Amino acid sequence: MSLEDPIRTFLDSQIVGVLATRSASGSFHQSLVYYGRDADRLFISTETQRRKARDVRETGWASLCVMGHERPFPSVTVAGPAFVETDDIGVRTAALAQRMLGLEEAPEPQTDEALAGVRRVLIVIEAEHVGPSSYI
Amino acid sequence: MSLEDPIRTFLDSQIVGVLATRSASGSFHQSLVYYGRDADRLFISTETQRRKARDVRETGWASLCVMGHERPFPSVTVAGPAFVETDDIGVRTAALAQRMLGLEEAPEPQTDEALAGVRRVLIVIEAEHVGPSSYI
Repeated sequence: MSLEDPIRTFLDSQIVGVLATRSASGSFHQSLVYYGRDADRLFISTETQRRKARDVRETGWASLCVMGHERPFPSVTVAGPAFVETDDIGVRTAALAQRMLGLEEAPEPQTDEALAGVRRVLIVIEAEHVGPSSYI
Repeated sequence: MSLEDPIRTFLDSQIVGVLATRSASGSFHQSLVYYGRDADRLFISTETQRRKARDVRETGWASLCVMGHERPFPSVTVAGPAFVETDDIGVRTAALAQRMLGLEEAPEPQTDEALAGVRRVLIVIEAEHVGPSSYI
């Protein structure tokens, strides 16, 4: 599906969300993450051995709930097919570093080889399902 | 388990979190909720027919991720056995209304009968598992 403009605008106005993933055994897991958006996909940087990356490899699905930080706490949950990427991830990883560190510009992108050396991968979520959302 | 003091203090300093629940079919669901704490249990008000209440009845487990609203975005995820309560829920429901509306005092508690009339229930989560947490 295609994200509607108000949802895109809201997602672009925030930098963190709560990621939920599920293991093959059925247990689910939430954690705070910085995210970025690329058209109708959201991406998150993590290390390849982390629970969230393992879960995505096992079950191929993830959900991200993004909220505003003042009353009435606007929020949207985006969920869909998810996968772990290791190719061509330098620019997006640099964009996440910029958001995380609050830099004016993104740092120079690293090569995929350099990122593999520090176990960095991207989790990518296709925005197949949007909701619940409120106050957006 | 017993929540450690820094976790209690953090949970009491915030009012909203992201709840994750899972249906019997395995799909999971996130939504923004106001919550309260009663010793080592967290509670959330919802309507009995909502997805979150149905999920908790079906699978008896829930996870709540609570975050601070400024960098470095402190957060903790509390998960554990969860159930739906309808008895003796007036005082806790009033406490949630106070937090949601930002009132100086909690409103007069309603009776269980009155709350049942508007389909209000509490989801209660036992804090069995704490983590990941950061910057707390």
